[in-house]
Amino acid sequence: MNTDVTTDFGLESIREAYEWTLLTSSSLNGIAQIFFKCENFQKIGVFKIRGVLNAELALPYSERKNGIATNSSGNHALAIAFAAGLFGLMAYIVMPRTAPEIKKTAVAGYGAEIILCEPTLQSREDALREVVERTGAAFIHPYNDYRVIAGQATCALELLEDVPDLDLVMAPVGGGGLLSGTALAVHHISPRTKVIAGEPAGADDAFRSLRAGSLQTNDSTRTIADGLLTSLGDKTFPLIRQYVEEIITVTDEQIIAAMRLIWERMKIIIEPSCAVPFAALLKDKEKFNGKLTGIILTGGNVDLGKLPF
Amino acid sequence: MNTDVTTDFGLESIREAYEWTLLTSSSLNGIAQIFFKCENFQKIGVFKIRGVLNAELALPYSERKNGIATNSSGNHALAIAFAAGLFGLMAYIVMPRTAPEIKKTAVAGYGAEIILCEPTLQSREDALREVVERTGAAFIHPYNDYRVIAGQATCALELLEDVPDLDLVMAPVGGGGLLSGTALAVHHISPRTKVIAGEPAGADDAFRSLRAGSLQTNDSTRTIADGLLTSLGDKTFPLIRQYVEEIITVTDEQIIAAMRLIWERMKIIIEPSCAVPFAALLKDKEKFNGKLTGIILTGGNVDLGKLPF
Repeated sequence: MNTDVTTDFGLESIREAYEWTLLTSSSLNGIAQIFFKCENFQKIGVFKIRGVLNAELALPYSERKNGIATNSSGNHALAIAFAAGLFGLMAYIVMPRTAPEIKKTAVAGYGAEIILCEPTLQSREDALREVVERTGAAFIHPYNDYRVIAGQATCALELLEDVPDLDLVMAPVGGGGLLSGTALAVHHISPRTKVIAGEPAGADDAFRSLRAGSLQTNDSTRTIADGLLTSLGDKTFPLIRQYVEEIITVTDEQIIAAMRLIWERMKIIIEPSCAVPFAALLKDKEKFNGKLTGIILTGGNVDLGKLPF
Repeated sequence: MNTDVTTDFGLESIREAYEWTLLTSSSLNGIAQIFFKCENFQKIGVFKIRGVLNAELALPYSERKNGIATNSSGNHALAIAFAAGLFGLMAYIVMPRTAPEIKKTAVAGYGAEIILCEPTLQSREDALREVVERTGAAFIHPYNDYRVIAGQATCALELLEDVPDLDLVMAPVGGGGLLSGTALAVHHISPRTKVIAGEPAGADDAFRSLRAGSLQTNDSTRTIADGLLTSLGDKTFPLIRQYVEEIITVTDEQIIAAMRLIWERMKIIIEPSCAVPFAALLKDKEKFNGKLTGIILTGGNVDLGKLPF
């Protein structure tokens, strides 16, 4: 029993971890029978450590010896900074000026070098290219990378090992790393279980991509779910198209209400992005009626000075 | 694994419950080796259900058949309202007008009748006497009752069963029901383990009572820890005097900082009163250095609309 998950993803450690990361709430079970997989208790406060560690482990020493670089709006940055430290490597993190202070402080606290840029895709990519050229660091993409996707998939694997009879598994979708990994794991382990995602209406590229049958992007984004601003990639989209049943979009109002309900009833802290699948369930309640539903609560890194209530 | 603790306090259910109510945090373990007993995940969000159920079970039917009445600033009210419902009894709760809205709403939600009074001892006692005369309900005191004290003691019992080698056990003190029960349980189960309490400086009657060797009261109170405003009673004080090693007082600033640290690092929601023992540990760090310390996190009922940060 520990709020820190081991960084070794062997089966033994997974068994040890999932014992305490699954919660239920009798008051919320009035809505559906829900099992919450609590990645907010994960090391660094978010599931992203899974994908990054898997990717870092897969890199030969010659490729990682000059450090790891990435661009991230926050949680992936935390994961890279923390995981690089475990390997004794330098981390270089390109972050938009607008990233939450709590995340900048935490990244710096792990000893990473932060390179600030403008909050545009172009500025982020330019800054990343410059830092990779300058340092020789290896780039690990936040989601469009099969090693990252496979790491994120371990979360659904643990969930299904604990509750094998789930009718539904829910996750949020931003760039799609967690969602594609979740869908892949569910497909292989429990083909009858359906995967449904929640997505902010203000960054709904995945919803539109599924409907169009081709990769769409977000020209602009406007949502409180700051971990879900990115668009799907060419590796995550095909997996999501093949294995995800449905994407439900939710407004910021619905996200905040869902977040507040979990804070009040379950006494655990989740961030806005994390509340998105539960908001989707609340929006389409009848769809979940009588269904055994697993929801991945992705993370709990909120800036307590800027709460939406 | 469930955020709701069973209401049956048999050993089997205690074993089942403590599996998930004990948390540690590697970042907070830099301060001392701390085991947090998480009563914020308890039914109704607070430890108080323990004492009330024990008291209610001890009442013969003839005494409880007209319902249960009490006066409480909040959490005891929740416990009475919830527990009365379990027994199919009416609950009558005298509450000060100034009690948090979240607690008034929750008490009413359990079907209890709320009788509002002024936030003074005299007004509360008058209103309680009137409701008992009117209804014939049985009064259960929030803390100055051996049945309540014995119920609260089960929390330390579970903690010591899980971590038998604790050097220290910490709890907050208001009226002293939890603290006296904790001290009693620790004395009987693990006599070498010391009990240290935290108390708000703005309601420090217990600190002054220990120093004076006689029961002192709070003429006025001024603290954010709204669950700890009451003064010790003639049943709780002697137990505390005999079995509690020390009481450390903390300012509201220290309470808020401790609360924030637990929210940020552990991603769990605790209320201000609940942060008091951890604030005391942070204040006197050297005293806890190298000590295996168990801290009872008493509850998580906060009004999210009125957070101190």
